[in-house]
Order: sequence, then structure tokens, then C-alpha cells
Amino acid sequence: MTRLSLQPVLYVIGLLLAVLGVAMLLPGIADLAAGDVDWRGFFVGGGFTGLVGGLLILANRTANLTMSLRQAFLLTVFGWVFTAAFSAIPFVFSRLNISYTDAFFEAISGLTTTGSTILVGLDVAPPGVLLWRSLLQWLGGIGIVVMAIVLLPFLRVGGMQLFRMESSDRSEKVMAKVNQLGLATLAVYTLLTVVCAVLYDIAGMTLFEAMNHAMTTLSTGGYSTSDASMGHFPSPWIHWIGTIFMAAGSLPFVLYLKVMRGGVDPLLNDSQVKAFVGFLGFVTLFLATWLALDEGIGYFQALTLVAFNVTSVVTTTGFATTDYTLWGAFAVAAFFALTFVGGCNGSTAGGIKIFRFQVAWILFTAHLRRLISPNAVAPRLYNGQSIGEEVAGSVLLFFFVYVGTVGSIALLLGLWGLDWVTAISGAATAVSNVGPGLGPIIGPAGNFATLPDGAKWLLSAGMLLGRLEFFTVLVLLAPRFWRD
Amino acid sequence: MTRLSLQPVLYVIGLLLAVLGVAMLLPGIADLAAGDVDWRGFFVGGGFTGLVGGLLILANRTANLTMSLRQAFLLTVFGWVFTAAFSAIPFVFSRLNISYTDAFFEAISGLTTTGSTILVGLDVAPPGVLLWRSLLQWLGGIGIVVMAIVLLPFLRVGGMQLFRMESSDRSEKVMAKVNQLGLATLAVYTLLTVVCAVLYDIAGMTLFEAMNHAMTTLSTGGYSTSDASMGHFPSPWIHWIGTIFMAAGSLPFVLYLKVMRGGVDPLLNDSQVKAFVGFLGFVTLFLATWLALDEGIGYFQALTLVAFNVTSVVTTTGFATTDYTLWGAFAVAAFFALTFVGGCNGSTAGGIKIFRFQVAWILFTAHLRRLISPNAVAPRLYNGQSIGEEVAGSVLLFFFVYVGTVGSIALLLGLWGLDWVTAISGAATAVSNVGPGLGPIIGPAGNFATLPDGAKWLLSAGMLLGRLEFFTVLVLLAPRFWRD
Repeated sequence: MTRLSLQPVLYVIGLLLAVLGVAMLLPGIADLAAGDVDWRGFFVGGGFTGLVGGLLILANRTANLTMSLRQAFLLTVFGWVFTAAFSAIPFVFSRLNISYTDAFFEAISGLTTTGSTILVGLDVAPPGVLLWRSLLQWLGGIGIVVMAIVLLPFLRVGGMQLFRMESSDRSEKVMAKVNQLGLATLAVYTLLTVVCAVLYDIAGMTLFEAMNHAMTTLSTGGYSTSDASMGHFPSPWIHWIGTIFMAAGSLPFVLYLKVMRGGVDPLLNDSQVKAFVGFLGFVTLFLATWLALDEGIGYFQALTLVAFNVTSVVTTTGFATTDYTLWGAFAVAAFFALTFVGGCNGSTAGGIKIFRFQVAWILFTAHLRRLISPNAVAPRLYNGQSIGEEVAGSVLLFFFVYVGTVGSIALLLGLWGLDWVTAISGAATAVSNVGPGLGPIIGPAGNFATLPDGAKWLLSAGMLLGRLEFFTVLVLLAPRFWRD
Repeated sequence: MTRLSLQPVLYVIGLLLAVLGVAMLLPGIADLAAGDVDWRGFFVGGGFTGLVGGLLILANRTANLTMSLRQAFLLTVFGWVFTAAFSAIPFVFSRLNISYTDAFFEAISGLTTTGSTILVGLDVAPPGVLLWRSLLQWLGGIGIVVMAIVLLPFLRVGGMQLFRMESSDRSEKVMAKVNQLGLATLAVYTLLTVVCAVLYDIAGMTLFEAMNHAMTTLSTGGYSTSDASMGHFPSPWIHWIGTIFMAAGSLPFVLYLKVMRGGVDPLLNDSQVKAFVGFLGFVTLFLATWLALDEGIGYFQALTLVAFNVTSVVTTTGFATTDYTLWGAFAVAAFFALTFVGGCNGSTAGGIKIFRFQVAWILFTAHLRRLISPNAVAPRLYNGQSIGEEVAGSVLLFFFVYVGTVGSIALLLGLWGLDWVTAISGAATAVSNVGPGLGPIIGPAGNFATLPDGAKWLLSAGMLLGRLEFFTVLVLLAPRFWRD
């Protein structure tokens, strides 16, 4: 291998920080408008972040921007780590008076669109802080979509090579260039966010609430402007709008581009979309029926409650309209299981993701066929593509690493004395980028503030591992990666 | 495919039932000797089972005994189901006065060497019932070892084709024939059991206790003659004997045969054995140190406690000398994780098994290498054998199916209203064939008696699925299996 040059990596990180620095000014302006002293923290943070970004750009601008595989891995991981580290600055300087550990946790929970929070008293928090949290999720959301479309299939992480543009779009030529693709995705994402905000506003939110919640809905992030999350708003309209737009944020964004160019067929015929919608519908109807019977409440009320909270967990958003863990033992088990599912690939959602369950199921049935008839030829097709050995191995190893990571983090959390339910659900919710865990401490009615600092750093690492699909981070731990 | 004839399947099941019928007479004799009226149930059950077995043999004796793949699958599954169904009879006729559901649960928990029990008052139970429980585990233990050596590699289930005699022993020709192999294994198994019983007796157990516990130790079953399990015996000697022989029951029995023919090298050089012993040693030392510091008890006492209970769970035995769930949150998380590990392949232990973790780790590191250098050739070797695509897929799908099965059973248990900890640990302990779960109901100090009947049947199915390595059972659910 050739020598690993950091120049192009640092150059792009510089660009990211420059954008981030500018973004920090927006909540500063909001605080200024509201007459809140917190605006200073945003301007200081923005200036410093922009300065570092600018210096990195200047120092590395002569670099050749073609990237090797190793440089792309480094950029992906350190792009997120640096962005989170700098995003935490305004929280430290705000009048919330929190430690850097808490600030970093809040920032990476935002950027990875997880939505676990250490803040209490959101309803009376300065507007700048609230807007910054929403912006972090919104930026993280578009970041992950672009990464999933452009970068991860190229890095062949976790079976995402199934979604390479070359193969899936060769005949169609939806967009010729990656840049165009990124801009088009951003346009669709912005459009959906604006529509969602307008509908929230019409349904009864203030404009500020509507803007914030629209950003954290489309990004399947789940930060709210109230400690009671979406339970703050009594209107079932708001809950149904949330349900629909959380689901919209979990669909493959590439398909939206196709829809805009030629009708809804690509969306309706996509295998992953059909499975996702079918799964959501089935689980919602089943649990709503169970809840209506078990708790003796009206069916529409049960359906509204279940549709919102199930969609919130499956799409890895993490809003809650009620403490669903009070629905009893079965609900707790069900919501824990749902934590792992995730949305579609190429969306803002985290989790294991629907296509991996589909691929694993296809491999499973093909395996049974071969056990019964060892000499039979068993074609393994997903969405019209053949599943080769490499994709099969990537997807199945992904499950292995997923469960192994959640288990390891849960064990380490146990060493800090956290009870079993908090430890295992905390690990799962971080790795899946969902948000709330289970149990009285970190459940949908709880908060991550009281966890020990070490646990917060560990959960931060879990969020990043899950968001970057594990292998992107894990390759950096292999000694071979650093060998020239 | 040719028409599926059941004759050879029923013939072998007849043989199994005939042996079972004869075995039932032994506890009957024990009850007679103790002057307990329960002897009648064993003689009635033994007579009936022997009669059915004899009729099946007579009706199918002209059959050709060469088996097709499908016949071998059917024999494996229905051999275990029929044996369990008939083994339950003496429990129903005993003066314990239990339902057939409870009797079947106790029987299949015995035969699968799980060791979950619905009986309370073991210390005053009739000797026949106690002996029958131990015999069931002992017979189930030898059954699973012979199956793992002879049958499962041929069925290519869960990566066990790595242990085919043709490939692993071709050059060595340890034993020429399968029958010889079965008898030699039985001899080693019996010898180890006798040695264990003698040592238990010397260390302070009565002869009856020593016999029973030796049978349930070597079979990694975990049935005891006391409600307090091995905690009934205060002697650390007994606990260390138990620790060593539980581990002995979890080693590949084929290696014992090699050791008897030519020294200990094959045992010491085996990759799976080294990993198993290393893992047990590491976990024991770590947890013992933690316990000694956390609870402030002496190091030797901590070591004795931890070594026994960790070995018990890892080898899927399920004895307990204390309620380790009282050691705090970390212990609960750790013992839950250990539930999944399991012993070596070709032993009496259940669980995922050491070799699958080794194979998965090899696949994982090879995958990382290929992500970094896509064109590098990455040989994947396990114990000197190349891991082909088929084995890789089998092993990784095994993990997927394992977690999926535990999750599904836990969800269904939740539907019966069981709390989350009971549901998920109950599902895991059944599928891994360990025995005790976590929580106040089914924990090491608890009992499965109070669970609803449906939950008992579900857990019985989980034990069978785990014991037969899933795929053996799951192929029967594929419509293709029944097509001629």
C-alpha cells in the first residue's frame, strides 16, 4: 500500500467545520432576537469552528482530492468525530452550565440523529439551544443520507454494495454525477421539512416549535422543545403528521428523486419500501388491537398512540407521546425488539435496517432449500439483484457485530452499576440511534443526565459505531490499516 | 425426490422406545427397594413404552436401514419428540400428582439436558422420580454426543460439517466404523460418570446423591436431588469436582477417544478446547476478582463460587451453589451474556458453542482485511481447515436464527404477561439448554412451576430447537421437505 496522506481528509473536514461554524450563527441570531444572552456562545463557537475549518482548508488546499479507500474511511470516521467535538462548544458556553462530557453527548446524539438527551427543562431552555439541537439533527440527517448514497456502497460496508449507483442505476441514469445527487437530495430533504413544518404549524404548533420538530422529524432524530416530547401536544393531528413524516424520513431518498422524475412507480415497487410499510402496518394494527383490548380504550385513540410510538421507535426517531413502558410487560418486550429494526437504507433512519432482514431471510430460506436438496441450484435474488458471497457475508456479519456491540456495551454499563434493563436498553438505543431506552432512568419518560460520565462516553461511541455501520469504524482498529 | 418412506424412521424410533422402556424399570426398582408406591408408575410406563417400541420394531423390521437425508432429519426430530413424550409418563403416574404438561416439560428439559424444573420439594421426593430425572439427562447427554458426531455433520447443520469424520479424521482413522465410535463414546462417558460419582461420594455425598449428580454433571444437565441445587452441599471439594466434570462434559468426546489411543496431545492442541478453557479461565478470574472486591469476601471463596457458577452456565449445566443474581447488576448482565456461549461441539453442552464464535471471529477479521485491501487474498482457516462459503453461511445464519428464536419466544412469553426479564432470560435459557433464568420467578433460586401451561409448551419447543441446532427442526417446516 502507498503512504497514507491526510491532506484530502483534513481538507474536507475543514469544509465541514466551515459549514458548521456558519450554522452555529443561526441559533445565535435566534437568541439575539429573543434577547437571550446565550447568543455569545454561538458566535464564539461559530467563529472558532469557522477559524479552525478555514485553517484546515488553507493548509491542505493544494491536495489532490481523489481519495483512496483508506482516506475515505478516515474521512468518514473523523468527519463525524470532529463535527461532534466542535458542535458541543455552544452547549458549554450556554447558560445551561453543563460539562463538556454532557455537551459532547448531546452533540453526537444530535448529529447521529439518535435523540437521547441529558437536558432537563427544555420547555424553558433558551431558543438558541433548542434550535441548535434541531439543526444538529437536521444536518446529521442529510449527512447520513448523502453518505449512504455516495460513500458507504463504495466502502462496501455491511452489504451496502447492493445499493451502488453503478449497478442499481446503470440503465436509468437518474443523475449523472454525485454532486448533482447530493444537491438534489438536499432539495428533496428541505422540501419535505418545509411541508412538515407548515403542517405542524397549521395543526397547532407555534412557528418555532413547528420548525424545530419538522427538522427532528424528517431526520428521524427525535429532539423536542419540551421534556414531554410530542406528548406536549395534545392534538392527534400533530401525532399523525409526525407519524407520516417520520416514515417519510425512513424511506430511501434516491427513490424520491426517481419519483420526481417519473411518477411513484419506483417507490411503490421497491422491495425494501414494501417490506418497511408492511411491517409498520402489521405491527401497528396488532399492537393497537392488543392495547385497545388490554387497556380498554377506544380503537382510534389506541391506533393513534401505537402508530406514533411504534413508528417513532422503528424509524429510530425516538419521540414519545406517552410512556409506553406503562402498557405492561408485553409492550416493553415489543418496544425493545422494535429498537433493532430500523428504517430503509439510504434514509435518515438507523438500526439494522429493513434490507438486511430481507437479505438474511432470503439467505435463510435458500439455506433450508440446500439442506433438503444439497444439489439443487438455489438462486438468491434481492430486488432483482443476485446476492453474492461478499454481500451475504457482509450482511450476516453485520448482525453478528450488531448484537456483539450491544452486548459488550451493556456489559460495560453493568460494570458502572447500571441495572440490567437500563444497561441493555441503553446500549441498544444508542447503537440503533433511537433515543429513549427502557426503565425508569432512561425510558421514554426519563433522561440520560444522571448516568456516570464514563457511561455517556461509551454510549457516544455506541451511537457513532451504529451510525457509521460499525465496519467503517472498526477497520481503523486493524493494525493492517495503518501499515504503509 | 423419491417418495418419503417412514419405515426406517419408525424402526429406529421403536428401538429408542424399547431402550427407554427398559430404562424406566431402573427407577421403578429404586422405588421398590425404598418401599415407595411410585414403583408402579415406572413399571406401567416402562411396559407401555416397551410395548409401543416393540410393535414399531416388528411393524417396520423388514425396512431397508439405509437412510435418505429427509429420513435422517425426520428421525432426529421425531426421535427426540417421541422419547420425551413417553419419558413423561412415569411423572404423571407418580405421587407428585402433576399434569401431563408439567411432566412433558420436566421430561424434555431432562432429555435436552436443559435442567429447568417444575418440581418443588426435591429433597423429599420419591427416589424413583429423582433417579428418572438424572437418567433422562444422562441418556439425553449420550444421545446428543452421538448425534453430534455421527448425524449432524452429515446433515450439514449450523457449520457442523467442519467436524465430519471423513475430513477431520481421514488420515488418522481413529475408529473405522460409526457403531464402534458410538460404543467407544458410551464407554468413555460411562467411565467419566463413574469416576465423578466416586469422587462426589468421597467428598461427602451419599451414594444415591453421588450417582444422580454424576449423571447430571457429565451430561451438563443440572438436575439435582435438592431444591437448593449444589448449594445443598457446603463442601468446596464437591463444588470443585463439579466444576471440573462439568467442563469435562463440555469437551469434544472424539478427543477423549484419541487421548485413550495416543496421549493428550490432540486434546491440548485442539483450537476449540484451547479457546473454551481460556475463556472459562479468563471470565472466572475476572469475575472472582470483581466479586472479592465488590462483596469483600476472601479470594478463594470468591473463586470457588465464581468458578462453579460460571462453569455451570457456560457449559449449559445449570447447577447453582448460590443465587448469583444477588451479586448485583453487573453479575446479572454477565450471567445473561454467558447463557449464550455454550461448550465445545461434540459434547453434551448446548448454547451457540465455542467453535461458532471462533469461526465468526475469523470471518470478521478476514472481512476487515478485505475492506481495507479488496484485492488481497485472505485465507480463512479454522483448526487447519479452510472455511468455505457453505460453512461460513451456516455459522453466521446460526447466530441469526439463534437470536431470532430467543427474541420470538421472549415476545410470545411477554404476550402471556411475563415480565421482560423473565421472558427474555427464560427464552435464552431454554434455547441454550442451560436451566435457570434470571429474576425472582425462574432465577437460580426459583422454579418454572408457576408459568402458564402455554409458556411451558413454548419453552419445551425452545429447548428442542436449541438442542437440535434449529435447522434440523426448521427444515421440516419448509413445504419443499414434504414434496415427493
